[in-house]
Amino acid sequence: MKKIINQASDVVDEMLSGMVLANPKIERIEDTGILLAKDRPDQVSVISGGGSGHEPSHAGFIGDGMLMGAVCGQVFTSPTSDQVYRAIQEANQGQGVMLVIKNYSGDIMNFEMAMEMAEMDDIPVAKVVVDDDIAVEDSDFTQGKRGVAGTVFVHKILGAAARSGASLEDLASLGQQVVDHLSSIGLALSGATVPESGKQGFNLADDEIEFGVGIHGEPGYKREKLQPSRAMAQEMLEKLKAYNHWQAGDRYAILVNGMGATPLMEQYIFLNDVMGLLADEDLDIAFTKVGNLMTSIDMAGISLTFLKLEDDWLDLLQADVDVEGW
Amino acid sequence: MKKIINQASDVVDEMLSGMVLANPKIERIEDTGILLAKDRPDQVSVISGGGSGHEPSHAGFIGDGMLMGAVCGQVFTSPTSDQVYRAIQEANQGQGVMLVIKNYSGDIMNFEMAMEMAEMDDIPVAKVVVDDDIAVEDSDFTQGKRGVAGTVFVHKILGAAARSGASLEDLASLGQQVVDHLSSIGLALSGATVPESGKQGFNLADDEIEFGVGIHGEPGYKREKLQPSRAMAQEMLEKLKAYNHWQAGDRYAILVNGMGATPLMEQYIFLNDVMGLLADEDLDIAFTKVGNLMTSIDMAGISLTFLKLEDDWLDLLQADVDVEGW
Repeated sequence: MKKIINQASDVVDEMLSGMVLANPKIERIEDTGILLAKDRPDQVSVISGGGSGHEPSHAGFIGDGMLMGAVCGQVFTSPTSDQVYRAIQEANQGQGVMLVIKNYSGDIMNFEMAMEMAEMDDIPVAKVVVDDDIAVEDSDFTQGKRGVAGTVFVHKILGAAARSGASLEDLASLGQQVVDHLSSIGLALSGATVPESGKQGFNLADDEIEFGVGIHGEPGYKREKLQPSRAMAQEMLEKLKAYNHWQAGDRYAILVNGMGATPLMEQYIFLNDVMGLLADEDLDIAFTKVGNLMTSIDMAGISLTFLKLEDDWLDLLQADVDVEGW
Repeated sequence: MKKIINQASDVVDEMLSGMVLANPKIERIEDTGILLAKDRPDQVSVISGGGSGHEPSHAGFIGDGMLMGAVCGQVFTSPTSDQVYRAIQEANQGQGVMLVIKNYSGDIMNFEMAMEMAEMDDIPVAKVVVDDDIAVEDSDFTQGKRGVAGTVFVHKILGAAARSGASLEDLASLGQQVVDHLSSIGLALSGATVPESGKQGFNLADDEIEFGVGIHGEPGYKREKLQPSRAMAQEMLEKLKAYNHWQAGDRYAILVNGMGATPLMEQYIFLNDVMGLLADEDLDIAFTKVGNLMTSIDMAGISLTFLKLEDDWLDLLQADVDVEGW
């Protein structure tokens, strides 16, 4: 394992310290995994979180127009219910707290337990569970579909709506609608190495790729020989088309997400292939985003997310934001 | 070589197409390597460029408050003088064009030739040559010091000043002052693979790192065994301190830059170590930035840049900006 770290057991603690040093607009609650915006306006607080190793998710999206805070667990490990409960207490500005949770059993259990604890304190809390990964059902750590890069679109849309004064009830409804219109699929060229284990979660041969892997290295649905970007894009688009049943004229936002070790060069080439292949579909691609937004430590790979746009979602995606990671 | 690409010879062309698809605020001049902001306000145009493979540098910094355009050569290869000349012509809004050039022999030759061509057209042009890499002198492709990640601080400061109405003469003077206060040093955990060659530019053993490498894989000044982040930070800070002769109270901006395949997690840990080690130095670190800003394709590694802040440079670094890469 070749990483720029000190003790493997300290990576999350030291990373969180570094995040605060890099961004004067956020603060860490004592030595916890809780990071919050210093400026917490009088609105519903949207918070998210989960295991670390997905940076800039989730703490990189803290700031005006996106998240009020993030709860960061150990690498690929849910934060505890106590941590989430504390984050809810700290984040609440009196108008309640909206939780964005990725669909992993540990996260679901701990975030829901924290919700119950907060409700006993009469803090209004709502949640949305993101399960955008259409590659497989019931993978490691998940019942149903996994939550992956599409989560970032949920952060952006709910964050912009919260800033505009949406109520907790409105945000919960909006969040569920967005999730219902969201679909993603991933591809790996290499595994991710969790610092504490020191080994790649899975191994691919020098000429091998895997379609459908999750953001913790969960298995995908097939391994194949390395192929051109255009062929990878075609495979992923076929899955997304079959899932979405899209029709000419449908309006979508697209996210090409790098998994951590894949350079922007490749991400832009992949987007170019996606858009080229979509030309015949006659969709209205109204928004595109490219970058490392929901990573898997040092995995080489990419994911592709489609969000079918309704109502004013495009405005919410395009709204100004003041965060490090968007 | 395992990359998400099609033909190796097409990577730059396809990447530039993807960049334009990802950012509706920029446009490409026909099929050239020239990308420009669509909205070109009446001010001095700051443009930069060089070989591709350093994304988001340079085209990712096009937009309000930073670059008016970028000229993108093939991977690790200077754009031609004709391309740069065309970019100057297109970018000029009547108040002249400020060129930011990294110190590589090919870039210097082609940008200077383009300047001469533009001057014959009576377009006012000035340049600043960035040579912030203090690791070595006279490396491959360079006379004197190399230009590396500190270049993005030059883009940011000159871009903000140009938007505020600075003249070409002012920008040239400001640019040179910034360069004179700028120093960087890099570290590699792996080489970078140029698509057309298919091989890493240099090879490091599984337990080896190299201090002082350039952003094209040029040799550094020593190879050592892998060591903790804190020890790497200490080595690099000693070089930077010896170069800068800093004194207690001096005010600096810091950039921790990822080389392409290094996750944000490691970059934040490294920043945390840098700031911890600096505590005894009693400097005023007024600005910190972390991320993949000047990459070397898929190299794993990091660089550290110090800019000694003068005058209103902090305001210019902090000024709002509307670009993809900052």
